[in-house]
Parts: sequence; C-alpha cells; structure tokens
Amino acid sequence: MPEKHAKEIFKEFREHSIAEFFKKNRQMLGYSGPVKSLTTVIHEYLTNSLDACEEAGILPDIFVQIKRLGPNYYLVINEDNGPGIPKNYVGKAFGTMLAGTKFHRFQQARGQQGIGGAGCVMFSQITTGKPTKIITSTGKGVIFEADISIDVKTNSPKVSNAREYPGTMRGTRIETHLKHVKYQKGEQSPDEYIRRTALANPHARITYIDPDGIQVVYDRVVDKIPKIPKKTKPHPKGVEVDDLMTYASVTKARSIKGFLVNDFTRFSTKKVKELQEMLDFDLNKTPQSLTWEEAEKIVKAIKKMNFIAPPTDVLIPIGEEHLRKALQNILEPEFERVLTRPPAIYRGGVPFIVEVAIAYGGKAGRKSNNKESVEHQMEIMRFANRVPLLFDAGSCAITKAVQSVNWKKYGIQPEGPITVLVNFTSIHVPYTSAGKQAVADEEEIVKEIRLTLMDAARRIGIFISGKRKKYEKEKRLQEFMRYIPETAASIAKITGESEEVIRKRLEQIVKEKYDVEEGGKENGEQERQNGS
Amino acid sequence: MPEKHAKEIFKEFREHSIAEFFKKNRQMLGYSGPVKSLTTVIHEYLTNSLDACEEAGILPDIFVQIKRLGPNYYLVINEDNGPGIPKNYVGKAFGTMLAGTKFHRFQQARGQQGIGGAGCVMFSQITTGKPTKIITSTGKGVIFEADISIDVKTNSPKVSNAREYPGTMRGTRIETHLKHVKYQKGEQSPDEYIRRTALANPHARITYIDPDGIQVVYDRVVDKIPKIPKKTKPHPKGVEVDDLMTYASVTKARSIKGFLVNDFTRFSTKKVKELQEMLDFDLNKTPQSLTWEEAEKIVKAIKKMNFIAPPTDVLIPIGEEHLRKALQNILEPEFERVLTRPPAIYRGGVPFIVEVAIAYGGKAGRKSNNKESVEHQMEIMRFANRVPLLFDAGSCAITKAVQSVNWKKYGIQPEGPITVLVNFTSIHVPYTSAGKQAVADEEEIVKEIRLTLMDAARRIGIFISGKRKKYEKEKRLQEFMRYIPETAASIAKITGESEEVIRKRLEQIVKEKYDVEEGGKENGEQERQNGS
Repeated sequence: MPEKHAKEIFKEFREHSIAEFFKKNRQMLGYSGPVKSLTTVIHEYLTNSLDACEEAGILPDIFVQIKRLGPNYYLVINEDNGPGIPKNYVGKAFGTMLAGTKFHRFQQARGQQGIGGAGCVMFSQITTGKPTKIITSTGKGVIFEADISIDVKTNSPKVSNAREYPGTMRGTRIETHLKHVKYQKGEQSPDEYIRRTALANPHARITYIDPDGIQVVYDRVVDKIPKIPKKTKPHPKGVEVDDLMTYASVTKARSIKGFLVNDFTRFSTKKVKELQEMLDFDLNKTPQSLTWEEAEKIVKAIKKMNFIAPPTDVLIPIGEEHLRKALQNILEPEFERVLTRPPAIYRGGVPFIVEVAIAYGGKAGRKSNNKESVEHQMEIMRFANRVPLLFDAGSCAITKAVQSVNWKKYGIQPEGPITVLVNFTSIHVPYTSAGKQAVADEEEIVKEIRLTLMDAARRIGIFISGKRKKYEKEKRLQEFMRYIPETAASIAKITGESEEVIRKRLEQIVKEKYDVEEGGKENGEQERQNGS
Repeated sequence: MPEKHAKEIFKEFREHSIAEFFKKNRQMLGYSGPVKSLTTVIHEYLTNSLDACEEAGILPDIFVQIKRLGPNYYLVINEDNGPGIPKNYVGKAFGTMLAGTKFHRFQQARGQQGIGGAGCVMFSQITTGKPTKIITSTGKGVIFEADISIDVKTNSPKVSNAREYPGTMRGTRIETHLKHVKYQKGEQSPDEYIRRTALANPHARITYIDPDGIQVVYDRVVDKIPKIPKKTKPHPKGVEVDDLMTYASVTKARSIKGFLVNDFTRFSTKKVKELQEMLDFDLNKTPQSLTWEEAEKIVKAIKKMNFIAPPTDVLIPIGEEHLRKALQNILEPEFERVLTRPPAIYRGGVPFIVEVAIAYGGKAGRKSNNKESVEHQMEIMRFANRVPLLFDAGSCAITKAVQSVNWKKYGIQPEGPITVLVNFTSIHVPYTSAGKQAVADEEEIVKEIRLTLMDAARRIGIFISGKRKKYEKEKRLQEFMRYIPETAASIAKITGESEEVIRKRLEQIVKEKYDVEEGGKENGEQERQNGS
C-alpha cells in the first residue's frame, strides 16, 4: 500500500484565483528584476492610454513622470487626454484581472488580455502596501477620484476614498507607488521604452519627466489621428474546427449558410454555393445541429477554396509615410527604406500585417561596447501593434526571423549603423507570456516576417553596400593622401622641382588611379550580386 | 468632443474566464507549433504521474504511448501506478484551470500551477472535439472511468460516460486524442523529453512506445523512493513586506512573536528576542494589528540578522550518487562530475538548491551538423524540480548562467563532447510563462547557478583539458607513425641495413622525443592555468 492514500492527498485540493496565481508568478507579468518591473508599469499604462485615445478618436497627449521617493522607491504618474472611464467601471478596470473591453472583440488593439492594468495595481500594492490613485473624467464637468487595490483572494476591486467634484478635465490620471524597482538608463529603460513608443506612434505627443527631473517632449510628427481599426470577423482561411463549432453554437443565423455569410468576412453567397458543392450534407440545416465531423469537412473544403484577402481597414499599421517621418525625426538616418506586404493570416483565421523599416547611418544601430572590434551592431527594434517589445528577445518570432536572414547576401553587414524595425500588426498578437514581451514563433508569422525582411533587404542592400564601399574608398583615399606631402618633399629634394607642383601631380595620379581601380571593382561585385 | 464617448466604449466591458484566456492564448501553455504541442502534452501528464507517485511514496512505474491515428492525428496514453484520484475530484482535477493540490502548499513539487492537466484536456477538445478519457482507482477494488471536457466559458468540468466497476488496478490512466500535432524525432521530441525525464528520475521506470510501435524501457537505476520533500514554511531571509502582511492576516497565532515562531522556519524565540531589540514597537501585540510600516521595519531588521540556512529536507535534489548513476546509464560518458551547493534563497523567502553535472565523452555533447568544422557542441540540459525543459532556452536563467561562464578559462572547450546538466530544485520555480519552459532570470538564481557551474568547471577542467591533450597527442603520434614505413624503406635502400630494424628504431625515437616534448608543453600550460 502507498504511504499516503489518495483521499488524504486530495484533502488539499483547492481552487485559486487568477490574482493569486499572478501574485505568486508575478514574473509572468513582467515583474522580475527591479529594472524590468519599472519598465513594465510604464508599458502597461502608456499602452492603455494610447488605446483609449485611439478608440475614442482623440489625438493622444500623454504625460508620464517617474518621481524618485527613496532608494528603489518611485511614484509613477501617467495622465492622458483619453475618453476617461465611467465611474462605475473604475474599480473593475483596475482591480480585476481578466476583465476589460478588448478581450472578446475581434479588433486590433494594443491591449488584449484584460490583465495588465490590474497587474500594475497588484504589483504596487504588494511592494508598497498602497492602493493606486485614479483620477478620471469623461469630460462632462465631473471628475471622479478613487484609490483602488485588489482583493487577491477573490480577484475583485477594493475601492476607497472615492469622491466626485466638478472640473473640466477629460481623460485619466494614474498615480502608483512602486518599491523593488530601479530606474536605470539603457536599452531596457523606461526612457528607451518611451522613445520607441514615440517612434511607432508619430501621431502621439508624449511628455516624459525622468527621476532626475529632466523633461523630454516627443512632439507629434503627424497631426492625423490614425484610422480606427474596424472590428472584423474571422477570415475563412485558417479557421479551425473548434472555432467553427464555437461560433456556430452562439450565432443568431438560422442556417449554416446564413451563419457562414454573416459571421465570417469574405464568405459571399457565391462562395457558400461553391462550398455546398464540395460537401455531402445540406448547409440549410441549423448551425446548432452542425457536428464535429461536418465542421471538419467544411474546414477541409475551405482549404481548397480561394478567398479574397482580409479587408485592409481592419489592420492599421503605422504606415510607410508616418514611419519614415518618425525614423527621420528620431534616428536621423542617412537613408531608410520602409516596406509593408499585404495582410496574411495565421491559425484561427486571424489576419496580420508586417511592416519593416531599415535605417542606415545617423543614430541608427546599436553602439558596441567593445572599442577594439566593431563600432556598431545591427539594432533590432521589435513592435507588436505599435507597442515596443524590449524584453525576451531570444524567444520572439521577430528575432528568429531577423536571424534567419542571410544579410550579407544582400550586401548588408550586420556590423554597421543599421536599425531593423519590425512592427507586427494583428487582431490578436500571440504573445509567449502574459508579460507580452515576445511574439510566439507560429510558422506563418515567422515566414511572413522573414519574407518582408528579405524584400526590404533586397531593395536597400545595393544602396547600403554602395554606401559602405564609398566610405571605405574615402578612407583609403585619405590614407594615400596622407603620405603625399612627405613623398613630394623627398622628390623635390632629389629633382630640384617645386614641391608644390610635385604634390599636386601626385594627388592627381592617386585620384585618377584610385577611381579606375575602384570603379572596376564595384562593377564586378555588382554583377556577382545580380547573379546570386 | 471625442468621436466615441466613454459610455459607449465601456458597454463592451466584460469579464472572461481563465479557460477562455488560455484557449485564445494557448501558445502561453506551450501549444504553439505541432511538434512542441505534442511534447507539451507528454510533459504535463508524465509530470503529474511522477508527482502523484512520489507524494504517495510509490516507486513510479509509468507507461506512455503515442499512437498515430492519421496525419497530424494521435492518441496519447499515460498510465501510472500512483495513488489514483478519488472519483469526486476527477472532474475538477482535469476540467478546471487554477485548481489542484499543489498551488497553496509550500512544498517542492513538479507541478505547481493547477493549469497543465486541464490545459491538455482543453487542447485535445479544441483540436479533436473529443473529451479525454480518465480511468482511475485508489486501489480499493473499484475502478472509476469518465470522459472529461471543459466548459470554457465557465472554466468548469463536463463529465460524461461516468461508470464504476470492480477491478484491481491502482493509479490513473489517461487517453487523450490530439490533432494539430506532429511526432518528429529530435531535440524537442517526446523521445528526448522522456529520455531526459529518466535521466533526472533514476528511481522511475518508464515504458515508452513511440508512434512506430518501437518500445523503449528506461529501467530504474535506483530502487529507493526519493525522500518526500517536507512541507516547509517561508524562511525569514527574503520575506517581503506583503508576504508578512498576508501571513499575519491569516495566522492563528495571537501575538506577532508567536506568529513569527510558528509561521516561519528558523525563527526561534531567541531570534524573536534579537528582533525585538531592534524595533520600536512591541511584538506582543496581535498579528492582525501589524501595520505596513511596522512590517517594513521587521523586514529591514531581518536583513541585518543571521539565520540558520533553510532545512535541507524540504528540498530533495536528484542527489550526487543517483545523478552519477543515471548519467553513466544514459550518456555512458568517459567521466563525469556532479556538484551541489548548499540551499540558497530568492525573493519571498523561497529556498532553492542547484545541482550541476558535467559529463565528458561517450554520448555526451550535441552532435553538430556541420561536418567540416566541429564534431560536437556543448549540450545544455536544463531541469527544474527534475522536469526537463526543452523549449525557450533563450529566455532561461540556466542558459544565461551557462553562457556567462568563461569555460575556456577552466580548460573546457565548448566544442567538445560535453553535456552540462543543471537541475534547479525549489519550493516554487519562477517560470517565465504558464508553459513552464524557462526559469525567470531572478538575480539570486542566476548568480547561484553560475557559482555552482564555475565550481564544477574548476574541478573538472583540468581533467577535460588533459583528456583533450591526450587525444590530440595520440592523433599527432599516429601522424608521425604513418610516415615511418616509407622513411624506413628509403633508408634501408641507401644503407643496406634491415628495413625492420630501422623501422623499430625510428618508432622508438619518435615515441621518446614526442613524450618529452608533449610532457614539457603540458607542464607549462598547467602552470599558466594555476596562475590565472
């Protein structure tokens, strides 16, 4: 007999709340290490502010401040000019995990989990014992203010000090105290997070005051509110059997035919006819009577059919023009190339679109610490729905795709002042973790990013390799030129000729010879490149 | 005015269940890509079986089979001789996320989230539409059988076809159908997962039948059930203010003094006295009256105090002897070194212990595909509480620690037949994601793993570098020897001496000369190494 019987073991069987789970596993929300934890809070609030403004059709004007209150003790303030939060939702919006306006919608947004905002409140509360102060107004002359914390056992909000007073603000201001965090400059700092957010959101104005009181204003480069991504329906391609069964069980349509036309995008009555011809059962029956086997047959048939690509107005990328302006504004590169491919679809019928920008020169590239070897390294900037991803690069589909490209083939040396920016835009971003720092390496996603990168590399490679050669050429020319005065002086002594005349003659020779040589080389390489 | 008012936006505010969340974000549970998804299922069930056996004090005997039913369609069977599950818990154990026996315990176990088992049931159901069959018995002559699926909307079990019948089995058998999965050999295959599980669990007997019907039996190397890790209490060192407040609010003790002694390990009445002397308030008051500020003072004071290390019987690593036997059994290395350091503590007062094994030669190391360069590469085997981690290596504290070691300094070439095994044992493993594939890089954890690795490298480096030199020496010797017959023949022709005599003389000269030369070199390097 076992030492311990099942009955005894299962006496300890319990259910636990999602808040308890994430309190114990706060690292899954991005709260591991003092530097990452601070950036995570900035990330969650800034993301929510941008989403709120965009959804309401407001040009975002956001104020972020980090105040140092003591060693590893800070106050974070995030204020936006968004639509505000109706007072009866404030508690749940900040004090309940798995709640929000975005999870059930089939619509592009930065946030999608309904966890992040409440996660910040919880992290604040477990490190300082303090609630988070929310001041919000929907712009009708009344301001609502309350302190929110989470009852972790029940995953429900505790609201205190609630009060209303007249005022003209519209938007939301959050004040949250944090301990076990550390402000530190660098690639994973709040500074960098905000800089990259500005880069990918050229329509936003962000004012940022760091703990040393230094203010940076990222002014908007474009004055147009980005189009609001339309709510959409799943695209037939990529829909899985379970999705079909789930949608069929809740549809209001009375027949499978109607269900397909109503509940999917790009499923015309003509397409339904085409489908019917491939099936051995009648699509006029009720959606609720659809069996798993029949749904499997539909999915199989769909795989053989052609559909129009998903509508483009459901995915709003940054846009080539805006991205170019933003790059010029922030990286000041010598040149840049921005590229977008048509939308693609990954499992579940979820559409996505990949934007790639490659910038060369100026502030592009990552400065290498090793002074002896290279000065620069390729910098990879990852974004998902315009949100910068600063952590977990190693497990991200974007990193995987960038590393899979043979850059040298396109004449691009990874050791150079190059920034490769990838923005993955989708109705649903498949993050690897609730901390939302890496895109899962779904096959279709990695493939599409890779193709876009290769396309961009092809278009920019010739230019970069030309630039590099020109730079190397100039360096060599300068090298030759350095020796000319000395040589000229020597020859003048021997021949009695004027030093000035000899110097000029020598310079002419070097320049001529050099141009011929280099010109020849370049043509040769060009040919090889075209041939490969 | 904004285009869309807050009231309108918040009409869409909803709560969603944890099952809905993980259905949409199944990649967070390890279900991304067909190969990883299959291994994830094997991982979840095998882990649960091992935990169940160990907790009940049973030597595990586990049967795993993967049956191919069609293209990308499989049946997975996992049967153990564990304690079984009482019938009234079967539904919740497999059909509710965030439920289980392990989450609230402060005790080492493989599982800890209460998500994994139900995750498999959900993945099976959304890919095949089928429930998972559970056959279980607690060994009292009655077998319980039922089909379980999850009501995703409510995160609750749906039990069907439940029946009871007499029988003599004890344990649990799971049969689950899976689509969108693919069996494939390789480093992230079920085969490799099971091989590594056997390596870290030498007390388990695992019988595995792969989809081609090939059976592998990993017999137990040791016949002793590992000690059951004792339930413990948090250690004062590392406890945070919020932990203290939470524990204080639920303690049965009547004074803070009593609370500290009862609810923590290593907090003796003597230690409480020492603490009292450092504080400006009375520890005789009730735990419920403890304020955040007072708790902060206690935590600060604790940081200045010394405590005995956590008890060792709460952490049960594989053990040096068992690990050595397992390595010899599975990797058959030329030699190996196993090292454990005393337990350490990370944030929250959670104790952990690091085991490192380095194996050289035999089947150790990862075979490189590139035949032209190196034959082998260092293989990193990561384990957490004896569970193999096959995915997300890039974001794991173990990988980070291994990469931070300057192996060459210890005479170890990363290009060699070397396997570095790290087993991280803890009351709570801080995984980066609910998929449990990488340990978060908490500072204390990376540091401790790194120190253990360096310690092991120091002890084994001299040996490996000697081995490598011996191998290179032999290779060079063979090179010399190859030319001797030819040279001997030539000399014989010229001098008229016997070819045989000349050959032997030459061989002797080469061997003597070679030994002196090499011996000298070796000593020289030895010195340098000791000096560095």
